[in-house]
Amino acid sequence: MNTVYFDHNSTTALKPEVLQAMLPWLSQTAGNATSRHIYGRNVRDAVEAARKEIAECVGVQASQVVFTSGGTEANNFAVKGITTNLTPTQILVSAIEHPCVSRPAQSLAWHEWKVQTLKVNTQGVIDLADAEQKLNTHTGLVSAMLANNETGAIQPIAELAALTKAKGALLHTDAVQAFGKLEVDFGALGVNAMTISSHKIGGPVGVGALILDKRVDIAPLLHGGGQERGLRSGTENVAGIVGFAKACKLAVATLKMRSMAQTKCRDQLETGLQNLNAVIFGQQAERLPNTSFFAIPNIEGETLVTALDKAGYAVASGSACSSDSTEPSHVLLAMGIEPDLARSAVRVSLGESNSEAEVQGFLKALQQEVKRLKGLNAVAA
Amino acid sequence: MNTVYFDHNSTTALKPEVLQAMLPWLSQTAGNATSRHIYGRNVRDAVEAARKEIAECVGVQASQVVFTSGGTEANNFAVKGITTNLTPTQILVSAIEHPCVSRPAQSLAWHEWKVQTLKVNTQGVIDLADAEQKLNTHTGLVSAMLANNETGAIQPIAELAALTKAKGALLHTDAVQAFGKLEVDFGALGVNAMTISSHKIGGPVGVGALILDKRVDIAPLLHGGGQERGLRSGTENVAGIVGFAKACKLAVATLKMRSMAQTKCRDQLETGLQNLNAVIFGQQAERLPNTSFFAIPNIEGETLVTALDKAGYAVASGSACSSDSTEPSHVLLAMGIEPDLARSAVRVSLGESNSEAEVQGFLKALQQEVKRLKGLNAVAA
Repeated sequence: MNTVYFDHNSTTALKPEVLQAMLPWLSQTAGNATSRHIYGRNVRDAVEAARKEIAECVGVQASQVVFTSGGTEANNFAVKGITTNLTPTQILVSAIEHPCVSRPAQSLAWHEWKVQTLKVNTQGVIDLADAEQKLNTHTGLVSAMLANNETGAIQPIAELAALTKAKGALLHTDAVQAFGKLEVDFGALGVNAMTISSHKIGGPVGVGALILDKRVDIAPLLHGGGQERGLRSGTENVAGIVGFAKACKLAVATLKMRSMAQTKCRDQLETGLQNLNAVIFGQQAERLPNTSFFAIPNIEGETLVTALDKAGYAVASGSACSSDSTEPSHVLLAMGIEPDLARSAVRVSLGESNSEAEVQGFLKALQQEVKRLKGLNAVAA
Repeated sequence: MNTVYFDHNSTTALKPEVLQAMLPWLSQTAGNATSRHIYGRNVRDAVEAARKEIAECVGVQASQVVFTSGGTEANNFAVKGITTNLTPTQILVSAIEHPCVSRPAQSLAWHEWKVQTLKVNTQGVIDLADAEQKLNTHTGLVSAMLANNETGAIQPIAELAALTKAKGALLHTDAVQAFGKLEVDFGALGVNAMTISSHKIGGPVGVGALILDKRVDIAPLLHGGGQERGLRSGTENVAGIVGFAKACKLAVATLKMRSMAQTKCRDQLETGLQNLNAVIFGQQAERLPNTSFFAIPNIEGETLVTALDKAGYAVASGSACSSDSTEPSHVLLAMGIEPDLARSAVRVSLGESNSEAEVQGFLKALQQEVKRLKGLNAVAA
């Protein structure tokens, strides 16, 4: 396949070093970590070593890491598990959350919770004044992501944590997009719970974790054999967990170099986009170094994504995480972008394999496709 | 590692053919199945091909298969998801269910459901007369496993399905232990929902499925991007799903031959056990061909498992699925076994790699360890 992959916020390829770390657990007689024989003990040791490595990558103790089947489960677990043990009051979620945070929050309306949305500004950054005002109403839980998957805009989570703490509310952050692209320190953020995921950072799909402040009383979402200290039942996915740990270590080790290289590529991309009269969303915000979310006015995002796919470039339109959705991005609408312009949105998210030459090739292909599509539009008008 | 693995009801080693099927999805640039570009389409095609293969293995249409992160999630999803959309009445679960069925059911007591237990007889088989009587009370859902993980006792699910249908209740069966060891046909069983798992049949850990009667109205447990037709959000674990499908096909293809070989080994094992005055639980029941659950009176199961581990045989005591539990098996207590005898329980569960020579070696080691432990007991008395 010669198509250039520019969709790393959606998922990443498994790194060869990660596969090497996983293979022993995909090849030998595997044990169940709950078994007391030698096979079980070996698996348990591997899981605990991985837990310790991941904990170190986010500055916490191993016992604060609860493994899940991925970011979606960890976010559902945080929102539903924390609220289960609280008296129903208000839950606040930002307007730009991934549906695996906003939909569990909405489901709490059936359990007497009042769900309110935190506003963002035109750059897609949470409005702290709005948050402070809404926190005047008694609030049990706030959930706000650390960096947005569409715009890449980094959110003021430490500041929000100070506000929530002052009001006695708990704060969960979905750090799925931020982790591995930014330095992420659980303690420095001051949050009570944080979601991270493996497949966004070169690890396997099907594994993630919820990092917990030990004072948080959380109810399990999956009941059963009592694994993960009773917080998440189910046979431990040892190969996935070992791979996740390896991916975390690699991501943290290469973070600075990768960040510099990607910023350079992204800036070149955006210079080229501006020459094509593209609108770049959230450009004034502090953003992830790998993400550019833009629109060529009057060209539908879906159409452009399909054309670019044929031209050899894999990019995303709107939110790639909501399957088969043709609605304009809820993130852009929250930023006050007109629906017509929002429907033109295309996202490029770089990975460490991408080069400046690929960016230049992309800009050339984009220019050709835009010219062609504008011509078609003219004919159809 | 030279220890003989006799704990296949706990987990199985990944089959080499399964790993080969998975490797392309662990090696190349992976796409997200919800993405519209070529990488996304390739992943989606692989997931849908796997879904079709798994569906064929249990006699259903592909659209009836909902992928989950494993048996625990599928069982939680069935119990919580089906009851969410029903008016709270009575839920019946058998006394021998795995905790990932019984604990979600117990959690429904908080949501106005009345949880009742279906009795089993002394052989560990569900008492249909008791079920029929309890179904006279208006019942929303019944959950009963197809084969027990500890004794291997096969349950009268088709008969139970006829009873539940007559009373307008829905029936879920946990077929995690049965699938791959027995022929399992969803339609012939007459159930409304059925759980299967990958890692019990030589597939990877971290993937399972809930098979659904299309008329069942089930609420999602994991909300988010809307994958699996809105029933289970989260990025599809393509490598895991492809591996699961391969393991299903292999398990079904080798079922008859494996069943004959294991029955022969198991019978040899039990002849030897009887010579050691072991009590064999559920021996009069129709059982899985690979499972033998027994006790040497006055020798604690945990102690024997540890001794056998040192002697080179990996077996389980009581329920291997409940981590760090020292309570006697709830399955044996439900069968009316005295707690003292239940604490002596040891489970051997054979896999296709095991040989008659290994069984003979095990019996020899067991005889030695029993002699040694009885000697120690005598000294301590």
